[in-house]
Order: sequence, then C-alpha cells, then structure tokens
Amino acid sequence: MPGGCCVERVCEGCPVLLVVDERRRYVFRVRRGAWFGSDRGSVKHDQLVGLEYGSWVRLSSGVYALVLQPRLVDYMERGLRRRSQVIYPKDHGMILMLLDLAPGMRVLEVGVGSGFTTAVLARAVGPGGRVYSYELRADMAEVARRNLEELGLLDRVVLRLRDARLGVEERGLDAAVVDMPDPWAVLPVLEEALRPGAGAVFFTPAANQAARLVAALRARPRWGELRMLELLARDYETRGDALRPKATMIAHTGYLVYARLTLPAPTP
Amino acid sequence: MPGGCCVERVCEGCPVLLVVDERRRYVFRVRRGAWFGSDRGSVKHDQLVGLEYGSWVRLSSGVYALVLQPRLVDYMERGLRRRSQVIYPKDHGMILMLLDLAPGMRVLEVGVGSGFTTAVLARAVGPGGRVYSYELRADMAEVARRNLEELGLLDRVVLRLRDARLGVEERGLDAAVVDMPDPWAVLPVLEEALRPGAGAVFFTPAANQAARLVAALRARPRWGELRMLELLARDYETRGDALRPKATMIAHTGYLVYARLTLPAPTP
Amino acid sequence: MPGGCCVERVCEGCPVLLVVDERRRYVFRVRRGAWFGSDRGSVKHDQLVGLEYGSWVRLSSGVYALVLQPRLVDYMERGLRRRSQVIYPKDHGMILMLLDLAPGMRVLEVGVGSGFTTAVLARAVGPGGRVYSYELRADMAEVARRNLEELGLLDRVVLRLRDARLGVEERGLDAAVVDMPDPWAVLPVLEEALRPGAGAVFFTPAANQAARLVAALRARPRWGELRMLELLARDYETRGDALRPKATMIAHTGYLVYARLTLPAPTP
Amino acid sequence: MPGGCCVERVCEGCPVLLVVDERRRYVFRVRRGAWFGSDRGSVKHDQLVGLEYGSWVRLSSGVYALVLQPRLVDYMERGLRRRSQVIYPKDHGMILMLLDLAPGMRVLEVGVGSGFTTAVLARAVGPGGRVYSYELRADMAEVARRNLEELGLLDRVVLRLRDARLGVEERGLDAAVVDMPDPWAVLPVLEEALRPGAGAVFFTPAANQAARLVAALRARPRWGELRMLELLARDYETRGDALRPKATMIAHTGYLVYARLTLPAPTP
Repeated sequence: MPGGCCVERVCEGCPVLLVVDERRRYVFRVRRGAWFGSDRGSVKHDQLVGLEYGSWVRLSSGVYALVLQPRLVDYMERGLRRRSQVIYPKDHGMILMLLDLAPGMRVLEVGVGSGFTTAVLARAVGPGGRVYSYELRADMAEVARRNLEELGLLDRVVLRLRDARLGVEERGLDAAVVDMPDPWAVLPVLEEALRPGAGAVFFTPAANQAARLVAALRARPRWGELRMLELLARDYETRGDALRPKATMIAHTGYLVYARLTLPAPTP
Repeated sequence: MPGGCCVERVCEGCPVLLVVDERRRYVFRVRRGAWFGSDRGSVKHDQLVGLEYGSWVRLSSGVYALVLQPRLVDYMERGLRRRSQVIYPKDHGMILMLLDLAPGMRVLEVGVGSGFTTAVLARAVGPGGRVYSYELRADMAEVARRNLEELGLLDRVVLRLRDARLGVEERGLDAAVVDMPDPWAVLPVLEEALRPGAGAVFFTPAANQAARLVAALRARPRWGELRMLELLARDYETRGDALRPKATMIAHTGYLVYARLTLPAPTP
Repeated sequence: MPGGCCVERVCEGCPVLLVVDERRRYVFRVRRGAWFGSDRGSVKHDQLVGLEYGSWVRLSSGVYALVLQPRLVDYMERGLRRRSQVIYPKDHGMILMLLDLAPGMRVLEVGVGSGFTTAVLARAVGPGGRVYSYELRADMAEVARRNLEELGLLDRVVLRLRDARLGVEERGLDAAVVDMPDPWAVLPVLEEALRPGAGAVFFTPAANQAARLVAALRARPRWGELRMLELLARDYETRGDALRPKATMIAHTGYLVYARLTLPAPTP
Repeated sequence: MPGGCCVERVCEGCPVLLVVDERRRYVFRVRRGAWFGSDRGSVKHDQLVGLEYGSWVRLSSGVYALVLQPRLVDYMERGLRRRSQVIYPKDHGMILMLLDLAPGMRVLEVGVGSGFTTAVLARAVGPGGRVYSYELRADMAEVARRNLEELGLLDRVVLRLRDARLGVEERGLDAAVVDMPDPWAVLPVLEEALRPGAGAVFFTPAANQAARLVAALRARPRWGELRMLELLARDYETRGDALRPKATMIAHTGYLVYARLTLPAPTP
C-alpha cells in the first residue's frame, strides 16, 4: 500500500468515520476480517482497505455510506469511551483562543475525566509540547489513557493519578485548564506551577460555582484579567428551502472562567 | 539580559499588553526612548525593560498598570491594524475545532482581510505547516502582511494577491477557510485544491447569503457533512456580588457553514 | 355548593389542572362518575368536587396530586386539541405588548390554526372586544371552535371560514395577527381593514420568509415602524443546589415581524 | 372636532408619538400654542390638531415626521419618567402569560419603581380589575403616580406607600408581581393575600438572588409549579438586503421566577 495511509487512503489499522446518514455515524479502526454492522446494512472491513478517504462504500442493504477521516470532534462524538460529563467543541475552541495555545507549549490540566480536553490540548501543543494531566480517580485516568492512545496523542501527555490540590511537580507552565467541583481549592497550586502571565481556564457547569470561583480569584492578590462567559451554539437546518434554526439546542454545557496569573499587586 | 526575552521578561523590542483598567488596554512593542501615554498617566518604555511579565508598573499619575504578554486575542482587540469586518475569537475557536487543525497542516484561506484569521490558522499549524492566503485587494493584503509580520507569523504564510475564484496553485490541502461575499463562486476551485475528506469553513455575516451557499453545496455532488451554525458568547459581570450577564452583548458576528469534500457520490 | 365555582372551588363541570409531578400534568373537566387515570394512580372525579383549588388529592397509589385552576398556558400545553404548529407563550406575550392589546379592542386574525392565538387575543380584549378570525381549512376552524368553546371564549370570537387574501368584511380594526405561509399576500387587505396607526404582527417560522415579508412591507407605501425579532426562553433548573440552565431548550419557534399601518407618505 | 379623539384623530390634549427617524421618536401631549422641537426641525402643536393618526407632518426643516398613537411600549421607551431599573416588554409579555392575566382580575404588586409594570398590569385587568401596588419610597411612588396619571390608568390602581413585608390589606387576590431586592421576605405576606392557586412572578436582576428565592420557595410548604427563566429578544435588521441580527443586543434584564400558591401539602 502506498504512502498517505490514514490520511489519504484507508489501510489496515486506520481509523474511519463511516457516515450512513445524519444520525448513523460510526468511528472505528479497520481490522481485516472484521465486519461493520448497523440497522442499515453491513460491510466487511476488508472492503474498506485501499479506499481513498472521501469514497462511498456499498453496504449489504444497497445503501452507500461515506468513508471519512475522523476528526477529533467526530471521535469525541462517536469514537471514544465517555465516563463523565464532557466539555463540548464550542467550549474547547474558546479555551484554545483564551489560553493562546500554540505548538510547543506546556500545559497543566486538573481533572482529566474522559480525556477529551486532554486530547484537544495535546493536539494544539503538538509533538514538541506537553500536557501534564492530574486525575484523582484511577478508573477515569484509565479511560482517558485509552482514549489518548486510540488518538495517538499519549506521547505528549503526562498522566498523573494524584490530587492536584496537594501540589504538582511542574513549574513555569504556560497555561492551565481546570475541570473539578472545587476549583478554588487548586488556586495556590496554580500560583506555583504557572509562569507569571500564564492564563487559566476553569470549566464549571453551575453558575453559583463559577461565581464562587470568581470571588476566590478576586480575593487572592495574584489574579487579573478575570472573565466569565458561556457560549451558545445554534445550529440551522441545512435541508429544504426554509432557513431556520433547528428546533432544539443544547442550552447549557458550562461556564468558562478565565484569569491570568500576575505577580503580587503593589500595596497602595 | 538573560533568556526568556518576550516570554518571561520584557526586553527591548518585546511586545507588551499594558492593562491600566478594564477599558484601557494597550498593545505595543517596547522601544528604548519611547513613551507610553494615556489619560491615566504615562511611563517611559525604558522602565518596562527588564521587568518580568506579570509585573506592575507605576505610571506618572501614581496608578499602577499590569504588564503582560499579549495573547493573539489581545493583539486582535488592541494591537493590529483593522481595515475590514473581522472574525471574532469565539468563531475562530470553533473554526479550529471544525477543521481539526493541528501542527503541520496545509490550509487554504480565501479572503484575507486584515489577516486576523490568517494569524489564527498560522499559529495552529505551527512552523511546520503552511497557510496559503488569497486576497483580491492590494491594500488589504498589505495590512495583513504587516499584521502577520508584527506577530512573527509571516514565515508560515504564503500571501497571494490574486482572485482565488480563477483557480489556486496548491493541491492536496488539508482544510480551507473562506470569507468572501460570494463563497459559492469558489467551490469548483476548492474541489481541486483540497484533498478528499478535507473540511472547509465559510464565514458569512448574512443569513440569506449562508443559505444560498448551503444550497450551492447541496447542489454540487462532492460535498457532505453540511452544517450551518452561529455562536453566541455571553459574558458575565465579574465584579460585585450580583451574578448576572453583562447588560449588552455582541448579538451577531456571522454564520459558520461547514462542509467536507468527498469523492463523487455513486449514481443510484 | 357556594359561590366561587371554578375560581375558588371545584364544582361539577369545572376545569382542573392535576399535577402529579413535573411531567405528569393533566387538564380536564370534572364529570361526576368519571375517573382520572394515569400510570401513577387514579381517582374518581367525585372526589375532586368540592375541593378548594390549591388542594392535594390522594390517588389510588397513595401519591398526592395537586389540584389547580388551569391557566391558558396550561390548556395550551395539555388541554386543547392541537392540529398545527402553534405559537408559544413567549411569543404570545410579546404579541400582546407589540400590539398594545387591551380590553375592548377589535382584532383581526388571519390563519387560525388550532385557535391558541385566538384564545390569547380573546382573553386580552375581554368580553367587550372582538376577534375576527379567518381560516381557510374547515377542519382547522372546527378544532379552533372546539378549543375556544372549551375555554369559554367563543362569544368574543367571530370565526370565518374564508380566504382572507380575497378580502375581509371588517373595517377600522385596532390590530392584526397573521400566521400564514404567504403573509405578503394579505397586505392589501390589512390596509383596508385596519385603522391608520394600527399595528400588525406576522408570525413566520422561516427567516427567509420573514425577510421576504419585510421587503414587501418596505415596498408598499403605507407601513412604518418595521421590526423583526425572535425571542428565546431559557429555563433554569429549580431543583438541587446547582444554579444552571436546563440542558436543552426550544431553540426556535418563529420570527415576529411587526409593522404599523400609516397613511401614504408624502411624495418628496 | 368629531369623535375618535386620541384614537383616530389628534385633538388638543391627545398624546402623540412623533417619529422623525428610527432614533428620533418622541412622545408628548398636544397643547395649543406649544412647539415641538428637535435637531431635525420643529413644528407648532397646532398643526397636529385635527390630523388623523398615521399622518405625516412637515417639520420646519422640510423633513416629514410620522404622527402615531403611542403604545404603552412607546410610552415606556420615550414618554414616561424613569427613576429606576425597569422591566422590559419581553418580560412584561411573559408575565401576562404566566399569571394568566385577564380583565377583571385583582393583582398585587410589590415594588412599584417607575410604575411601568403597574401600567402593564392595569391595562390587562381593564377598568373592572384592580392593581394594589406597594412601594417603600415616596419619591418612586410619586413618579409612578404621575406616569399612571399620564397614561390614564390611575383609576384602576391603588398605590400604597408602605412596606409590604409588614403585611398587606388585601385578601383573595388573583396574582402577584414582586420586584424588590429581598423577595423571599414577602413570601409570608403573599401566602395570606393570594387565593390558593394564584400565581406570583418575581423579577430579579441577579441569578444568585433568583436562586436564593427559588430555595426559599422550595423550603416553604405552600408553593408549587416553580419555574425560573430568562428571555432574550433578538432583533434583526429590517433595512437592506442582508438578513442578519442587529450587531448588539440587550443581553440581560433579569430573571423571572414563577410559583403558584397551594394549600399546605399533606404530610406523608
């Protein structure tokens, strides 16, 4: 098989996103001898091998399905283990912008959950960057590890099964993402681990929790540039002639609180 | 001066974000002999040289201002030339997620404007990636070039002063971002330039324009995974005890239309 | 049975809203000898007779249910026949405000559907007002008639089974509500039927339809004060300690277009 | 002058809404001998007398202005004294729907402010209804009184300059609207004044305040059907060919908390 495996062409072991219709979307790895099956027909994996991505494959039912490279957002929607509330792409994108993430950066993550955010951060910092991820629960850390392995991103991630509130090893980090029920408890640790000027984003599902965090950040002398926001994503119908938003939407995922570590403010 | 220039420490020539208060935020480069001035006081640039980022500096008025590394979003808000309607961070973040942008990718941009989106793409693809940016207007291309130079991102960008609707040179590109009044006119060009499976995001301020684009994408046989959405960012007050959204917000920037290039669908 | 029937006390023939839990809400009229039944238990209607509204009644399962006067919004949610897309309370409320509806007014309605909006208008204009409602389809008009009878509002409504685009009988009306696929087709009729200065609200589910209407209103010389808007209602959780919006919401019902009839503008 | 004064035709003493352009909108009463003046020209009130509403009048500048009957929402925007934060039409409309307001009802209002909400309630209950409005501050009550007089609605309103938390005189009321900083403090009073089954809407600008109220309502045994929501009104451009929301919007006015008074729940 020529070059371009998993990017241009499906090889044994490559991931695919198989789209039967808008709701029937499947992410899996191609294994010779295995079968893909759904209520709309099945196909042997062998038939996928050698196809160009972007191709159509005929299922046993006669229906054609589209074969695509899964994006990270496709993986998060369909292809990963999910054991916890997760952060959504609209919020992930904003986190990247708020934290100014770029290849080569070293990032702290507190509260790994299923590892979705870890994956987003690991992609953004590239092979030359690092994500230091702290998780309390062994089962969650294991789910995250497997997901990151599936995504091929484990080499940039240092997973630590430990309570970050008790301290972290790293120093001089460029950014932090915190997703935990008591984010105010980790502020002293962030103040030691981040370099001055580094930003932190805290994700919290509840508004009163976010407000308590904002008050805690204000009460400590080393945080500035506070911002609290939420993002709403509104999808529109793309079929038919009527231009209209979809009838229902995700009305709430969580609030983002952003702050930036400073040196102590001068006493007036 | 030790290492860490422009990252940890302000050196001659480094950019700074100087925060006097929530509204008075300034982005500039430090030049020995120059003065920073505002209605809240002034300071000689020389006093900034050698400071750690995250420090506070005393202005002539006695007010202290915070000295920070400008993020890309700070530059876009305060530090770049702006000659056109621009795309906002909430939309930029979502574009990164939709297109699955990662270090090393090669991206097409049609409609450069002030170069803000170019900068976001160039950051995400890293030094090993490339952004090929087509712009019709010489004055806009020049604004974009200067902005990218200021940001140190020009080395990853190939700026072409040319009408992309007439064709582009590149082939096998990984993604495209289109910001132009008649995005449907560039679809045949995208079909040649993108690799099968690559995604494209189109930014359009008007809903009827977005709807016309969606219809055009549906009418052509090589586009799938259509999505049209808009993002709303809602900021909350972070001062005082009342938990409440800010009284006004940006209610509209534009719509994002996403589609993915496929190979031609089989004829039934 | 003393006074206060149907307002303070449940009598034979009175309507009740029976609330078993947040999802199990039922609107019906009390008939001696009948049974209320649900998957959470049953109760004979006779046991409801004589109860004060606001009381709790014990179902066969031992569960207590709340007995309330049904509001119009409870009827619309649970107690009326529904044969069409309906307008929601958030939009109904805004229609009342935009049209400045008050007791005694005479209102035109074009497109009756299930009669929900008719009911809202009929309530607002009171026994001294009138709603003239035009509907093309006999089956819909019949549904509306029955709903209005159930609500006791039929005496203020003149239901006409006729195509309003061909003209209406009334003149000098104070307001109009239009809910039809081609609202632009009824503008000449509104110009004859409304008194100068009267307002009209048009409800349209699709944005391109609303835009076409706005263009039609602008093109005619007798409409001013144009406004196009949509309303979003965002509900919050009221149980538990976490303050957060509900996870999903109705993202779209329709657009409201408002305009006011004027005398012809002077030719400049 | 014939009949139809102030409804069809402008007479001495009638109110008018004079619309010069989208921003220049004025509400005033016509007084012979007086002048209307603006930066776009002036006109003697005498020229307005006898005009049909819906007419255009020529200002001294040659510009034509539209003469309309002011709606309650026009008054609230332009024609009334405003001494406090006010509730907006989108919220007023929803309050009418939640409370099921109709002609003839008797309503309690706690916290009158500038009297805008009082006016909305007074209009809805009609001449046969009553609004009992409690206000602590004499200056506010006076502003409200003048506004209601201007609107001709004072005859249906009983304004009481008194602390409603200490008790109200009325009993068996049909609904309540509460707009005060500590709404939980008035709950015992509402429980005495409202008839069982009556609804109450509480308007609160801050989310934590609304959450505290929700908790207080849950803790007391006589409130059911709790709901907390906020409404967002999004306006669209109505000029030009681009279909798009206006660039900025009111992002927040306040939260509405709704609850309904019941009889005490049975002890299990």
